[in-house]
Amino acid sequence: MANYKEIKTEKLKNFIIKIFCSYGLSNEDSFIVADVLLRADLYGIESHGVQRLFRYHNEIRKKMADVHGKPEIVFETGISAVIDANKAMGHIAGVKAMNLAIKKAKEQGCGMVSVRNSNHYGIAGYYSNMAAVEDLIGICMTNSEAITVPTFARIARIGTNPIAIAMPADPLNFSYDAATSVVSRGKLELYNKNNEPLPEQWALDASGNTSINAGEVLQNISNKIGGGIAPLGGVGELFGGHKGYGLGVIVDIFSAILSGGLTSNYVQTMPGLNGICHYFMAIDYGIFGEKAKIKKSFSAFLDELRNSKKAEGQERIYIHGEKEVEMMEKRKNGTIPLNEKTYKELLDIAAEQGVVCDFD
Amino acid sequence: MANYKEIKTEKLKNFIIKIFCSYGLSNEDSFIVADVLLRADLYGIESHGVQRLFRYHNEIRKKMADVHGKPEIVFETGISAVIDANKAMGHIAGVKAMNLAIKKAKEQGCGMVSVRNSNHYGIAGYYSNMAAVEDLIGICMTNSEAITVPTFARIARIGTNPIAIAMPADPLNFSYDAATSVVSRGKLELYNKNNEPLPEQWALDASGNTSINAGEVLQNISNKIGGGIAPLGGVGELFGGHKGYGLGVIVDIFSAILSGGLTSNYVQTMPGLNGICHYFMAIDYGIFGEKAKIKKSFSAFLDELRNSKKAEGQERIYIHGEKEVEMMEKRKNGTIPLNEKTYKELLDIAAEQGVVCDFD
Repeated sequence: MANYKEIKTEKLKNFIIKIFCSYGLSNEDSFIVADVLLRADLYGIESHGVQRLFRYHNEIRKKMADVHGKPEIVFETGISAVIDANKAMGHIAGVKAMNLAIKKAKEQGCGMVSVRNSNHYGIAGYYSNMAAVEDLIGICMTNSEAITVPTFARIARIGTNPIAIAMPADPLNFSYDAATSVVSRGKLELYNKNNEPLPEQWALDASGNTSINAGEVLQNISNKIGGGIAPLGGVGELFGGHKGYGLGVIVDIFSAILSGGLTSNYVQTMPGLNGICHYFMAIDYGIFGEKAKIKKSFSAFLDELRNSKKAEGQERIYIHGEKEVEMMEKRKNGTIPLNEKTYKELLDIAAEQGVVCDFD
Repeated sequence: MANYKEIKTEKLKNFIIKIFCSYGLSNEDSFIVADVLLRADLYGIESHGVQRLFRYHNEIRKKMADVHGKPEIVFETGISAVIDANKAMGHIAGVKAMNLAIKKAKEQGCGMVSVRNSNHYGIAGYYSNMAAVEDLIGICMTNSEAITVPTFARIARIGTNPIAIAMPADPLNFSYDAATSVVSRGKLELYNKNNEPLPEQWALDASGNTSINAGEVLQNISNKIGGGIAPLGGVGELFGGHKGYGLGVIVDIFSAILSGGLTSNYVQTMPGLNGICHYFMAIDYGIFGEKAKIKKSFSAFLDELRNSKKAEGQERIYIHGEKEVEMMEKRKNGTIPLNEKTYKELLDIAAEQGVVCDFD
């Protein structure tokens, strides 16, 4: 396992802001990107945190992400909009789009915004939680590079295509955020690093059969030879793999089809273009009745789930989002662990960008 | 395996209409219930077809379903409504609610209707497809008796809570309709009948551990002793069971929490009351751009999935809804197979209700 260095949260955030300013992003936009990345680390979702800086750095240099790209509304009604991100950073497009959905929800009861021509935007849950903080239901989806294999296929044609839904509750908001594939690519990388066989139902080889060889699957994905990750529900139909496959298609409907952008089988297949598409929705649940009463009954339901009898050997039943908020409480005024590889990458990027690094 | 008798579709439908008329439902309402039930049989979803008549018969006799119950709108905005079904048959409440969502979508761009105090409504896909036929996106969810066990729990607290989403496409509409549990109770019953061990990850025993004993699990569910079916993704978190569990909670948010009805942990727990809740949404996808263009690009995407390279030994990649429509084409002017047990139940009910049965 990798070694970790603890970095003060505030210092790490300021550093990330400075890095993005150095690419030519405005202060405000740099703050947004840093806030989304840090949120993933605060939640304990290392795969989507500052370790992604390396990827963003390269995408900016290759002009796949345009630091001067301005997302623009290209179609609009009272309750809906399509935004062309114009290759802006996904986080910038995402925050703009969810703010628009929130504004529409406050004015009209609901707002739906589909975004094309964007880039990787971090964790989907960041955006659904923006709506929940405003006492609205938030929904967010994104497509991504095709690494998930549809049921009975042998080639990856769908992204890990996550769905995030947040709903206000006491004492903590409900916040669901999950890929529609059985696992993320990051999980396979971890098994590969540790030289462990994959659980069956996670991945497929180039002929479309179950594979437990993480290294081979990852290589096949990178070289687009075939195979990839199974949809939620696994390989074939026995455990419901066709359900995860369908949920992945649904994410492409709302993000790519409604925005007129690239479906996940085309994402990251063209030179100089990621073409990622997102979807954002906010609903004022007051359009269904008295909000205080609705929130109270939802909080009671979550309590009933939490307080159910635990399975043998289990101490806790989690509500979605609890683990992340608890981790954030611990980390926000403290430190964030960076693994050594990420730490070194950050120092290299800082040197290249002429940014002073004052972690220590 | 059971023996099947082929019954002419038209005769079976007329028979079901007459049965529901005999309970005191109007001709129009009887037609609606029969149409929903028959659609499941036409689609090849035997579990949700006329074999459910036995259940409905008993629920009507016990006054859990009120044949004179009139669903009424108790809260409404331009884009939303809450309907109290007043214990009407679920199919009656469902068709009324989806028609209202469709009307709102045509007028306002989208319509969302949450329904409480209803009954079992057949297949969720019937209602989402009502919207697709009107060239809209249709979404439908329902909660149900808690037979799904949340991750790390030992008691079933969530229904199989299906989600259905339909979107117009050529040559066939996309139509996703799936439980958020790994399988339905009907699948367990089939394994039990055939005395086969369950696949691991499908079910849990009364202590919350994986069980492959279908008979025991079914008995524990009926006697509410503990255990039940796993969420989509299986037992624990390894295969994403927490994702299916979260999707089940989301269905309860939209159907039960927004309508002020019973969440699935209370459904069918009180004498004389099912209290099932549903959610219906229709979206005019013209609020995102030119409909013909959107539908065309979606149809092309589905074709790309269909025509992908197949896994070794597989001949076909399905789009959601294809299997069902193909089965319907075969059966709609032909016959529907009824298993002998169902056939006998129908004859008994007919005798009890004084309805002449002219199948032969």
